[in-house]
Formats: sequence, structure tokens, C-alpha cells
Amino acid sequence: MVQLTKYANKGGCACKIGPHILDQVLKQVRSVTNDNVMVDMTGADDAGVYLINDEMALVQTLDFFTPIVDEPTLFGKIAAANSLSDVYAMGGVPLTAMNIVAFPVPLVKEGVLANVLNGAGDVLREAGVAVVGGHSIENEVPLFGLSVTGTVNPKGVWKNVGAQVGDVLVLTKPIGTGIMSTAMKGDIFHQGGQEAIESMCALNKLACEIARDFTIHSATDVTGFSLMGHGYEMARGSDVTLEIYAEGLPLFTDVIEAASMGLVPAATYGNRKAISGVHIDASLEAVWSDILFDPQTSGGLLLSVPESEGIALVDALQQAGVKAARIIGRVVEQGAHQIRVVR
Amino acid sequence: MVQLTKYANKGGCACKIGPHILDQVLKQVRSVTNDNVMVDMTGADDAGVYLINDEMALVQTLDFFTPIVDEPTLFGKIAAANSLSDVYAMGGVPLTAMNIVAFPVPLVKEGVLANVLNGAGDVLREAGVAVVGGHSIENEVPLFGLSVTGTVNPKGVWKNVGAQVGDVLVLTKPIGTGIMSTAMKGDIFHQGGQEAIESMCALNKLACEIARDFTIHSATDVTGFSLMGHGYEMARGSDVTLEIYAEGLPLFTDVIEAASMGLVPAATYGNRKAISGVHIDASLEAVWSDILFDPQTSGGLLLSVPESEGIALVDALQQAGVKAARIIGRVVEQGAHQIRVVR
Repeated sequence: MVQLTKYANKGGCACKIGPHILDQVLKQVRSVTNDNVMVDMTGADDAGVYLINDEMALVQTLDFFTPIVDEPTLFGKIAAANSLSDVYAMGGVPLTAMNIVAFPVPLVKEGVLANVLNGAGDVLREAGVAVVGGHSIENEVPLFGLSVTGTVNPKGVWKNVGAQVGDVLVLTKPIGTGIMSTAMKGDIFHQGGQEAIESMCALNKLACEIARDFTIHSATDVTGFSLMGHGYEMARGSDVTLEIYAEGLPLFTDVIEAASMGLVPAATYGNRKAISGVHIDASLEAVWSDILFDPQTSGGLLLSVPESEGIALVDALQQAGVKAARIIGRVVEQGAHQIRVVR
Repeated sequence: MVQLTKYANKGGCACKIGPHILDQVLKQVRSVTNDNVMVDMTGADDAGVYLINDEMALVQTLDFFTPIVDEPTLFGKIAAANSLSDVYAMGGVPLTAMNIVAFPVPLVKEGVLANVLNGAGDVLREAGVAVVGGHSIENEVPLFGLSVTGTVNPKGVWKNVGAQVGDVLVLTKPIGTGIMSTAMKGDIFHQGGQEAIESMCALNKLACEIARDFTIHSATDVTGFSLMGHGYEMARGSDVTLEIYAEGLPLFTDVIEAASMGLVPAATYGNRKAISGVHIDASLEAVWSDILFDPQTSGGLLLSVPESEGIALVDALQQAGVKAARIIGRVVEQGAHQIRVVR
């Protein structure tokens, strides 16, 4: 049986071009925009938002990566859940998807690509999304992902800025997909690995739908730039500091043990290098840094909500089946660091 | 200076996974669709169309490929014009784009990616399109392209089916970008090469806007599957035969000479293998087969219009600056072949 992860050095979101390199590129690129663009990539938000009329804006995102798991169907499911997540992170409803395929021809002939596409299809169908196209080219390393378009009420767009002092922070999925994917390659920590796979395949649809009934000051999904990276963007854009409770984070089983053994993807170091502004309490063991900067694939939503609504939101999420949801921190006055991680 | 084409064996649309392999994949893939999908990829159309309401449908396409030229800015321009073309081929107006980037990190650091993005940006700006996002990963071979979304009146969608007996066929750009790109690698046939580059950078926007004032029974753009491939789809879907006048085709300077020297991209053979149903008049020199099956990048629109409007359409196109536009054939009763190429 084909082992997809053998084809790539870095799996999932960990194969992204590093943020420090990307920032240099974006400084040299002239913007291509107009008055209809409500959200673009300059703010490091999850998806672009383009105003069509007073009632409707398009919310659009695009994501693709190398295999993060060996099994083709699972790879497709994870890629689809990951791509759709950006639309949910803006409070939108995804409608259409297009497949992005770069694949070695022998794998295509063996039926691997068909399995990837069917895996993605299962998740897209669950989301109520239609596949309207795609493109496929030959490539030595298999790459797969999707371009997703949804709609959102222009007055109800969630952004990664707007967090307010006094808010609490709610996270809807456990942390550690990068560490667990690395562990899976070594064929250890099966339970945590299985949990990570299930989590990566799960849509943020339900979390988004439930959160719409609450006051969402700011939202993002936690992906390749890690909890610290995406939290940093939220803090910086909101002129606040996020206080994160390390020991309150939802984690996959054995994430701490795996990280302690050094099962840490390379992109963790890139994230740590790129993201200044994070202060980790000195009393926390060194392994927490590897967890906090772990690149997530198809991670959960990070929601900033008024403290008065925090517990009710977590309760509603858990009752609906978003079991990992919990309060992982709070928003405080802007201090010396964008993020302060406490015990 | 970096020579982008050295990074890839097959440039531009020639790097597509061959249609005969892709057909096998699509047979194994379960469709993911719903009643709002007006056009999807099952008909080999240029873009997907998704109904939003009575007045508006989204028209969406996605395209990316390896460098077809050495100069990064030109590569960006060509990729953008090529991606936007699919929206124009459906009669739509493109609104947003997202960049698809897989690039070697050293090239990113040298500023090559920034130049590619700025080249694409110039063409997108000319088209009135806003960039709302994108995704970039590391890859040994540089890949670039765009996901494009536009709108179209649901009652005015052009499809690659619907050609009627008695129509004439109008093509808006010369043929031979695959052959000329191959010649450019050998540093010969500079004039034709220059013409091909200019043609690949040119938008089909003007051709689309002018054609909207005429009766368009069917439309497609001519890209990787060659004039024969895209013509075949039009003929098959319309239950007609296309008669193409070989010697009436607009060609870049020296295309015939270059093809005679064997400067033919590998994908030509893939196209010929995949597309049955083409009969080439025995009196035509063998080189015509290489031209007819040449994979085009950012090719022109192929429009099927009533004979009574053909000359007026060509005149209007030429006067507006679409100089290559001409009648290249006609639609006849379905015969033994989907396409009959005559002198």
C-alpha cells in the first residue's frame, strides 16, 4: 500500500513557505485591490471578503499541501476540512469548491488520486458544498487542496481583529496535530494519532453555526502558524494582549510526551523564529514551547467573546458535540508582549 | 539571471495530467453537486457556474502550471491571462483572484516570486480584478496560477455545447504557443516567440465584451488540450461536426517551420493519443497535425456564431484591436468524425 507521507519532507500546513520569508515577498508586491474588497491578505486574516451588494459578500480561501497522513482518503478529508475552515472562521457559509491537484502520474494511475478526491468529496458533501471544477498537473511530490467560496452577510463578518479587553478566548479543537503527525511517521502514540486524524477530518461547521448565536468580537482558525502565530495576529490587530492558560489547553493524548521525545515538525522552529512578542512563563517546562508553536492542520476556531457569554458558548458547543471546546485564556490590556502564556 | 523554464520539464498547460489518465480518475470519483450547479467539470467546460439567484451566478475557474517562459514577470502575466480566460470563455466578468504558489525557497528569496506576483497583478488590474488571498508552499519545481471568481447572468452563460449547423467558427488568437515556447528554449525563432509571449499575456476581456453583442451559440477558450481537443469537446457536446480550414488558421510567425524542425512539446502526443474523432485531409502536410494538437497556453476564444453574424463579429473584433480574429471553420451535420480538418 502506498504511504503518502513518504513523498514529502514536511506534511500538511508545515510545508508552507515560512512567514518571515513571505513577509519579505509581500513587501515587494504591489496590491491589486478595489473598494469592494472588505478583507484581503494584508491583515493575515483567514479568507478574503469581497462585497457583492448590501446583503452579500463572497468569502474566499485557498489552501493546499503535501500529505499529512498516509491514507489517501483521509488526506482528502483533512484537506477539505482544513480549506473549509477558513470560511467558517469568517462566519461564512461555504458553497463551492475547486480541487487543486499536483500529483505524480504513477500515483494517479494506481487510483490514489481518486481516493483523495473521494475523501474530500465526503467532507464537502457533509458541508453542503458543490465541487464546480479543479485543475491537475504532474508533480514529483503529491499536493492537494481546495479553493473554496462561500457567502457571508457583510455586516456579520468575523475578523481576526476586534478582540476586546475583558473577552475570554474559546478554542474548539485540541492542539498538537503537527506533533502527532510526526509521531505517526514513527508509528508511535497511536491513540493520540487517531484523535488527531479525527480532529483534522472534522468540520468547523457546527462550531461556526453555534457561535453565530453569540457575540463574536474576533475569530480565526488555528492552522500552520500555530496557536501562537494566529493568536499573535489577533492580539496585534486588536491592540490587546492575549493571556493563554497553558495547562488549560485541550491537547491530544500524549502530546506532551511526544513533544518531549522531540517529535516536533521542522515548521515549529520557523514559527518560533517568525513570531516574536510571545512570553512564556518561566515556570513552564520547555516542551510547552513546542506545543504552543506547533503548526496545526485543520485546527479549531479561536473565538474572542465577552466574558459574560464565554461559559454559555462552551456549554452550547460541548452539548452539540464539539467536545474539546473550552476557555483557554482571556484578553487583557496591551502589555509588553502580544501573548503571555501562563500556567 | 534565473531561467525559470529550466526548473520544469514541461512548461505551461503542457504540464497538465493527460486527458486519458484524467478520464480514468473522474470515472472513479463520486460527484459532489447540488441543484445550484449549472455547469461543472463533467462537460469539460472551461469554468464552473453556480446559481446564486435569478440575476446572478458565480463563474469559477482554477489554473496553475510550471513556467512557460524564463522571465518571472512574463510568467505571472501569462498565468493571470490564462486563468482569467476561462471566465471570459463563459461570458462572465471576473471579480476576484487568489494566488496559487508552490515555489523553491531560494527563488523566493531572490525576489523571483515577487516579480511573478507583480506580473500577474498587472494583468489582474487591467481586468479590474482584486486579489483577495492566496496560498504558498515549498516545492522543488516552481508552480504558479490563480483561482478566479466572476459573475455571469444565469441566462447568458456561454457553454462549450450548443454549436448549431450553419454556424461559423471564430478564433481570436493565433495558434502555436506550445511550439513557440519549445523554440524559445532553443533560442530560435525570436519573432514568433515574441508574438506568442504577447499573445499569451493578452486578456480575452475585449474579445468577450465585443462578442456579447452577438449571438454566441457556443464558446470555449483554446488551452492545454489544443484546438483539436477543445474543438472536439464542442462538437461532441453539440452533436455536430466542426470543419476547420487549416490554411485559414491564424498562426505565429514561423510556427510551421518550427514544428517541421520537431520543436513540438511532449503534450502534443498526449493530446493526439487522447483525442480520436479528428480527420485531417490527406493532402495536408504531416506538420499540421503538430499544430492542430499543439497545447495552447492562454489561447484565444473559439466562438460558434450564426453565419450571418460571422463577418460582422470578426470586423468588430479586429477594429477593437483583436487583430488575429478570423473565421477558421464552420459547423456541419454530424459526420463520421467530430472534427474534419480541410485545407
